Amino acid sequence: MARYGAMFGPDYTFLGVPMCDIDDESTWADAQAVVIGAPFDGGTSNRAGARFGPRAIRAACYLGFDGSRPSMALRTDGLLDLAVVDMGDVEMYSGDIAKSLDALEQVVTKVATAGKIPVVLGGDHSIALPDVTGCARAVGWGRVSVVHFDAHADTGDMEFGALLGHGQPMRRLIESGAARGDRFLQIGLRGYWPGPETLGWMAGQGMRSYEMTEVVHRGLDEVLTEAFTIATDECDGVFLSVDVDVVDPGMAPGTGTPEPGGFTSRQLLDAVRRICLELPVVGLDVVEVSPDQDHADVTAMLGSRVVLEALSAIARKRAVEAGTMPPFDPAQPLLDGR
Amino acid sequence: MARYGAMFGPDYTFLGVPMCDIDDESTWADAQAVVIGAPFDGGTSNRAGARFGPRAIRAACYLGFDGSRPSMALRTDGLLDLAVVDMGDVEMYSGDIAKSLDALEQVVTKVATAGKIPVVLGGDHSIALPDVTGCARAVGWGRVSVVHFDAHADTGDMEFGALLGHGQPMRRLIESGAARGDRFLQIGLRGYWPGPETLGWMAGQGMRSYEMTEVVHRGLDEVLTEAFTIATDECDGVFLSVDVDVVDPGMAPGTGTPEPGGFTSRQLLDAVRRICLELPVVGLDVVEVSPDQDHADVTAMLGSRVVLEALSAIARKRAVEAGTMPPFDPAQPLLDGR
Amino acid sequence: MARYGAMFGPDYTFLGVPMCDIDDESTWADAQAVVIGAPFDGGTSNRAGARFGPRAIRAACYLGFDGSRPSMALRTDGLLDLAVVDMGDVEMYSGDIAKSLDALEQVVTKVATAGKIPVVLGGDHSIALPDVTGCARAVGWGRVSVVHFDAHADTGDMEFGALLGHGQPMRRLIESGAARGDRFLQIGLRGYWPGPETLGWMAGQGMRSYEMTEVVHRGLDEVLTEAFTIATDECDGVFLSVDVDVVDPGMAPGTGTPEPGGFTSRQLLDAVRRICLELPVVGLDVVEVSPDQDHADVTAMLGSRVVLEALSAIARKRAVEAGTMPPFDPAQPLLDGR
Amino acid sequence: MARYGAMFGPDYTFLGVPMCDIDDESTWADAQAVVIGAPFDGGTSNRAGARFGPRAIRAACYLGFDGSRPSMALRTDGLLDLAVVDMGDVEMYSGDIAKSLDALEQVVTKVATAGKIPVVLGGDHSIALPDVTGCARAVGWGRVSVVHFDAHADTGDMEFGALLGHGQPMRRLIESGAARGDRFLQIGLRGYWPGPETLGWMAGQGMRSYEMTEVVHRGLDEVLTEAFTIATDECDGVFLSVDVDVVDPGMAPGTGTPEPGGFTSRQLLDAVRRICLELPVVGLDVVEVSPDQDHADVTAMLGSRVVLEALSAIARKRAVEAGTMPPFDPAQPLLDGR
Amino acid sequence: MARYGAMFGPDYTFLGVPMCDIDDESTWADAQAVVIGAPFDGGTSNRAGARFGPRAIRAACYLGFDGSRPSMALRTDGLLDLAVVDMGDVEMYSGDIAKSLDALEQVVTKVATAGKIPVVLGGDHSIALPDVTGCARAVGWGRVSVVHFDAHADTGDMEFGALLGHGQPMRRLIESGAARGDRFLQIGLRGYWPGPETLGWMAGQGMRSYEMTEVVHRGLDEVLTEAFTIATDECDGVFLSVDVDVVDPGMAPGTGTPEPGGFTSRQLLDAVRRICLELPVVGLDVVEVSPDQDHADVTAMLGSRVVLEALSAIARKRAVEAGTMPPFDPAQPLLDGR
Amino acid sequence: MARYGAMFGPDYTFLGVPMCDIDDESTWADAQAVVIGAPFDGGTSNRAGARFGPRAIRAACYLGFDGSRPSMALRTDGLLDLAVVDMGDVEMYSGDIAKSLDALEQVVTKVATAGKIPVVLGGDHSIALPDVTGCARAVGWGRVSVVHFDAHADTGDMEFGALLGHGQPMRRLIESGAARGDRFLQIGLRGYWPGPETLGWMAGQGMRSYEMTEVVHRGLDEVLTEAFTIATDECDGVFLSVDVDVVDPGMAPGTGTPEPGGFTSRQLLDAVRRICLELPVVGLDVVEVSPDQDHADVTAMLGSRVVLEALSAIARKRAVEAGTMPPFDPAQPLLDGR
Repeated sequence: MARYGAMFGPDYTFLGVPMCDIDDESTWADAQAVVIGAPFDGGTSNRAGARFGPRAIRAACYLGFDGSRPSMALRTDGLLDLAVVDMGDVEMYSGDIAKSLDALEQVVTKVATAGKIPVVLGGDHSIALPDVTGCARAVGWGRVSVVHFDAHADTGDMEFGALLGHGQPMRRLIESGAARGDRFLQIGLRGYWPGPETLGWMAGQGMRSYEMTEVVHRGLDEVLTEAFTIATDECDGVFLSVDVDVVDPGMAPGTGTPEPGGFTSRQLLDAVRRICLELPVVGLDVVEVSPDQDHADVTAMLGSRVVLEALSAIARKRAVEAGTMPPFDPAQPLLDGR
Repeated sequence: MARYGAMFGPDYTFLGVPMCDIDDESTWADAQAVVIGAPFDGGTSNRAGARFGPRAIRAACYLGFDGSRPSMALRTDGLLDLAVVDMGDVEMYSGDIAKSLDALEQVVTKVATAGKIPVVLGGDHSIALPDVTGCARAVGWGRVSVVHFDAHADTGDMEFGALLGHGQPMRRLIESGAARGDRFLQIGLRGYWPGPETLGWMAGQGMRSYEMTEVVHRGLDEVLTEAFTIATDECDGVFLSVDVDVVDPGMAPGTGTPEPGGFTSRQLLDAVRRICLELPVVGLDVVEVSPDQDHADVTAMLGSRVVLEALSAIARKRAVEAGTMPPFDPAQPLLDGR
Repeated sequence: MARYGAMFGPDYTFLGVPMCDIDDESTWADAQAVVIGAPFDGGTSNRAGARFGPRAIRAACYLGFDGSRPSMALRTDGLLDLAVVDMGDVEMYSGDIAKSLDALEQVVTKVATAGKIPVVLGGDHSIALPDVTGCARAVGWGRVSVVHFDAHADTGDMEFGALLGHGQPMRRLIESGAARGDRFLQIGLRGYWPGPETLGWMAGQGMRSYEMTEVVHRGLDEVLTEAFTIATDECDGVFLSVDVDVVDPGMAPGTGTPEPGGFTSRQLLDAVRRICLELPVVGLDVVEVSPDQDHADVTAMLGSRVVLEALSAIARKRAVEAGTMPPFDPAQPLLDGR
Repeated sequence: MARYGAMFGPDYTFLGVPMCDIDDESTWADAQAVVIGAPFDGGTSNRAGARFGPRAIRAACYLGFDGSRPSMALRTDGLLDLAVVDMGDVEMYSGDIAKSLDALEQVVTKVATAGKIPVVLGGDHSIALPDVTGCARAVGWGRVSVVHFDAHADTGDMEFGALLGHGQPMRRLIESGAARGDRFLQIGLRGYWPGPETLGWMAGQGMRSYEMTEVVHRGLDEVLTEAFTIATDECDGVFLSVDVDVVDPGMAPGTGTPEPGGFTSRQLLDAVRRICLELPVVGLDVVEVSPDQDHADVTAMLGSRVVLEALSAIARKRAVEAGTMPPFDPAQPLLDGR
Repeated sequence: MARYGAMFGPDYTFLGVPMCDIDDESTWADAQAVVIGAPFDGGTSNRAGARFGPRAIRAACYLGFDGSRPSMALRTDGLLDLAVVDMGDVEMYSGDIAKSLDALEQVVTKVATAGKIPVVLGGDHSIALPDVTGCARAVGWGRVSVVHFDAHADTGDMEFGALLGHGQPMRRLIESGAARGDRFLQIGLRGYWPGPETLGWMAGQGMRSYEMTEVVHRGLDEVLTEAFTIATDECDGVFLSVDVDVVDPGMAPGTGTPEPGGFTSRQLLDAVRRICLELPVVGLDVVEVSPDQDHADVTAMLGSRVVLEALSAIARKRAVEAGTMPPFDPAQPLLDGR
Repeated sequence: MARYGAMFGPDYTFLGVPMCDIDDESTWADAQAVVIGAPFDGGTSNRAGARFGPRAIRAACYLGFDGSRPSMALRTDGLLDLAVVDMGDVEMYSGDIAKSLDALEQVVTKVATAGKIPVVLGGDHSIALPDVTGCARAVGWGRVSVVHFDAHADTGDMEFGALLGHGQPMRRLIESGAARGDRFLQIGLRGYWPGPETLGWMAGQGMRSYEMTEVVHRGLDEVLTEAFTIATDECDGVFLSVDVDVVDPGMAPGTGTPEPGGFTSRQLLDAVRRICLELPVVGLDVVEVSPDQDHADVTAMLGSRVVLEALSAIARKRAVEAGTMPPFDPAQPLLDGR
């Protein structure tokens, strides 16, 4: 197929960044981050639709599609500073999860091995398995900690008779050793799944899961600070996996398995910023944005802003490390320069 | 009619709990709580649609309909631990409010008299009149305090020339003596209704109404603590009435008389948990969920979670009292066991 | 799992007909038709969501869920006269199309072999492959003609690198010999797919495909009459496959691959009636109802009415053949008796 | 209450016609037709929402709200030519159907007795009982024939234990003698209700009900012509009752009990025009427009156009009778003058 | 601005045809038709939103965006056969109608002068003024007849104190002489605008306007045949202007000034096909597709199909004229080859 | 035009306050505030629709339209206490921004010069230019400080080649000197626009812009207190401009340029109250409410409540200053009297 690579809908890139050809590394050699579309929802256990997540997230903005987004708050331009490119979508047929996840894993591995940050736009959360696995292949098996925002632990064993699906990726990652259970940080869990047996398994793996009760009681900032300490202990990189359902469904309705009682959008954006400012992020995915259940694109837009916040903060972190910008101070007035 | 009892839509129970036949007490003798559908919206003064509340709340979940919901946070299974059953819907013709409320009152009274907790799924807020009255008949006239979450006081005298309606139940309850005015705790009020005369009447009854200004200024936790002291003074039980419009309409749009400036979903769930952990709840209703104005079922899902949070917390309270579980500690990490 | 079998949502049957257990033939021995849910959308090439088709079609009615629907027009009660039962959903994981279609084929074969009419509620059109195959196993390989309403020919060869999917079932059926190409009647095709190569393949198989141009030019009634002649030539039974997208998307928006310029709902219902009154229908499916794109359930309701129209007409045909009712006369006034 | 009379929403009139005070006959003495809002949905057996019908129908137009609507086709201005005024809404509390229908009956009777055409904007179809009754009180008991467009016969006996409701008005009218069964013309019926017993009762009353099968088979024009002959036999006036659900739900989704397979909007408008051009219409209602299920106001707009088509045609009929305009010729080109 | 030219949203072309640069004629020299986006809705008198029409129409398809669409019915590939390219959007600021229409006129003139067919995607109907004017500049002043599908005559004089707007373009065209009034064919008019004065002006210009009454009474085919005779009399080319609101709003809700009682989608597509098969079309626009009021993209998809039907038919006409294909026969079966 | 003045939709006033005729000052001589509709969206750079903002905000309430709204919290009735009247809409044609803004400026100037508070219902944010200019003409050029809630700075220079638009009003105001840059307080900014150059210009003007980072870090109350000090320094009045997109799009989706990460509705209402209680507000506008993207009117309702909160607080401030009420104490229980 001569097309650029969008499985669903016309070919366009995330906010207009340059296209690249994943098979021609010269087209992405200068990039520090590569956007990868993962238009797959065959792993969903409830509402489908996340296959249109990449299409929606790439386009969810009212500004010009010029490949530039200067962050007012952080004073970096994540897209330009990191020379972000977009490879289009991996072909992922929702009717064949095994083949689809394999195809994605190859692409993520290639990008991560080249030292670029894969920015994977889901798709359902099944894709976290190839996403983290690919990064682990590049960075080191068991050397990537995972910071995982979600209403759900996604540590199920079997669903519908299958080992692969959007409720099981975290278990598969720990079982394979790609990620260590005791370097797995989950934030925002709530509700009525999984049950005691799975929670027991999780405890046995040394996972650290911050259910909303603890987040509310201790405060998100304190929880993050504690989690950061764990994430950076004996690990060489951090993978950030953001399931948009960590935000309350009342604010982010466009998702397949909504669980009331979540974050506000503001909280999620602030948390993503801190992670990318303070931790060595080597890859990230934003998953479970499902446009068919969305309203006025608010959830797709949130997905877009999670990606931009992450890229802007990574750019700031790198600028600080390079000595070209000072450390970020959230108390500084906008117009005093930051 | 040979049907089980759902007025609108197919016969199914709340998340798959067993059906019971309200006329055959043996079918619900082992239950500690009985779900009752009140598919009525004849009392609404604005948008109708709450008649489909029971149908929507029963089904609003992405998990299996197996009658089991283990709470991650509380480590109880409200449905199984309390052996919850569902009697279906009371026949309530929206065109005849007097007859409909009578029919509901009989069912609630029967359930409460048997020592079970009636869990009434509304329906518009008119139903609070029979709900609380039925519990008072069982527990003692004037011996049930009411904790009432709502944007509106629902203490109107007449609307459209009628004494019964969704804006008047609290007045009728206090007038009849079923509930004492000075044991009536309202939380979340805001907006432009009722006017000074009615507020004066409310003050005269000794009601304690926490408008959002006070909630924001003092904090929800402090407000709840104060309210709990009043609620347990010289009362033998507490009725919890949750109008979903206490949550901001931006987060819970599926309701008939939305008033901006409300709680977040998280705040409501936390408050319901505390009430059911700390107070002797003898009955509860969740009202004003109106699917026709909802989006992607977010409000119905919130209604479902309010019920589950209440049942899970009641189960925990009973387990703590029975000595089989320790008191709940919100600071404890999820996987340390709770 | 102790549940009755609905993969998505609570357990209830098509308009309240009795449940049956497909593994216990005694529970459906008296039925002339068995409803089978096929909640699968892993085969869709565009919007997903048809997995919720069975759930929506079963419930899309404003009348009581009492398992009875007397047709005003035909004066039969399709549900009661044919003693219809509902076996619930086949477990079909959308991430694994091969396994899912196999599971469905086994159930359809079992039902058809017992001489019952399988009434399969899709799900995407991938399921026509097991549906027709199952009937052919029972009735005779190549002895079942197919009447296929659709905007699309569904005779593609490969999509997304896969042989199975919702654009290919008709080709697979003809290739396997389950159905003869020259007994394949397609009605309602239009638009821009497939291209010349596939159309050439179709012509080579002797298929008879009535594109909308011909339908409009000659009239639907004439087209049907001609098709009926072909369908009954050297075949022992007819399978009726109705893709709801044959109706114009302006009237039936709840579907995944909408193509403007289709039938009105009235035309589809009239055509289904004639087919079931005049042809020996041995099985049927109604596919591609996708609630996430629907509005106010209009498409789900149309799906429900297609099923009822078919069952009512089959009952009438059998009554006429049994001599208990006269042939149907569309000109007869409603209240003169029919 | 000092307000003009709109129960739900702000006070405004149908497309800006002058307000009148129903209690001050001088304010409507010059009008030939009076708009009456009947914001009631307490009689609905399924989805509520028709209480907002009057509000929506009055405002559903993209043209200026100037009380003038010159019909291009008919070359009359129904609003100006008939000096139409709008009395606002009758107070109709949905929780008390008996009281509400009484209130409406008084108003309709007053208007009809004064020789004006009541144009009642529903509300659910329960209101046909007071609407026709009021006209019969004015014109003569049993002297008003009824032309009734609907998917449903609305001749049920009891629903939810009540005699009044939107499924029963036609039975009550015939029972009371207000309208004769053998002068009751129903057009557009279809589907699965009522059952044989009720159909038998209808036949016994001599009703003439054109089910969609007959309408399609014979053609709408022929059916109308036949019906007109019956309607004008031994009757002094005709009441036109239009349930918007006679149109296919795919085209008119904003209604409570949608039944697929109906008219197109064009067919309904053409039929209404013929009725009002050819029959002595003494009153009319447009019912079951329910905005909460509508999309982009298409159903409300259809309701608005049904009213306008009727008024324009009545004005033309009167102009023809007065000799100021020639009989209407549908074949005449628009710009040749009509 | 370095961007390709999409004012709203990402840069992509109609169904993936090649981009061209309107300022570099070599990039479109081989094309027979050029797609031009006119993202303007400043001229709307009611709901805005048509500025997103070009974005929506370009993307409204479930097939691959490969720049090829083989018409099953016509056996041409309009996009490939005519080597269609897409120049992106003209910059049209909705707050300045005069400047915006000028900018569009220049582009259309350039395309038409080069002998290419401008295919303008609106945008509101204001754009018909520059569209037809541009074609007249190329083909001859007063030498282009106009076939105009619309619910509205769009011959108003002033609206909101302005001469330019979506209700006035046809008057401006006739006033300027760009198009002759007596070669102006309007099809599908209906409703309550304009009033007698404007109708008189239209008659005075010799316009031929087929109101829906005449279309229904005489049949669309006969009306078209008559119109074709007028259109080809003393004119050198035909401009086809399709306002999507000619289709019934129940089927095409995504538009700003919906008028009930219109065409079905099928009728519009059939009419467009005949026009492009039988008349010398030199330009076309598709206007008033307004995604904010659309549902599930059904109206955008209809807009897309109107364009494709036109291009496919033009390609067929040219192939017939070139002797490479036989005249189109609508009665020929699809698979017999056409 | 004889109409009262609503450009879009029927004539009705904000919640039923009396109409006035802006050209007849006697009709508004007793009012302390005058509602002005500004139905304009020609200045939007993304989604249009705000032209319907005035229509929606005026009607977005479930209470009676009686021109009275007693604030429970503040114990004033903003509408009655300030004798608010509504002049209807200024005619603002979206296709001509210059003329439209001029027309609005004249009206605002007239109202402000008479010492009344103009309460302008937008419309897009372009209207802040005439709104503030008009107040400055009355109060003093450069003597009105601006408190501006928004996600966006609206200080762009040119957009689409135009100086006027919804992204530029604040720059124009500072350039003209109507408002001083160093008395311009912006609260709630976030996201990726404008870029460094414009931020530099803003800094150069001495603007004080509180981006969300600072608001979250320091707390909204502290930020407001600081801003109040600036606003009252050497200024004679304050203009309050509320862009509803300052609230998170998940809570307020009905707007044209949504930016995730905003306020909750509660925060906005609390901030508006403090401003109007503590500062000398001389005018206000509420802009960018766009009903076509709204759901269940939640955003329109928020707009309505912002207006009411402002008016209630202004009434309280005046009552306190007049000595008829005590200062407002947010900690006081509702029923203790306030």
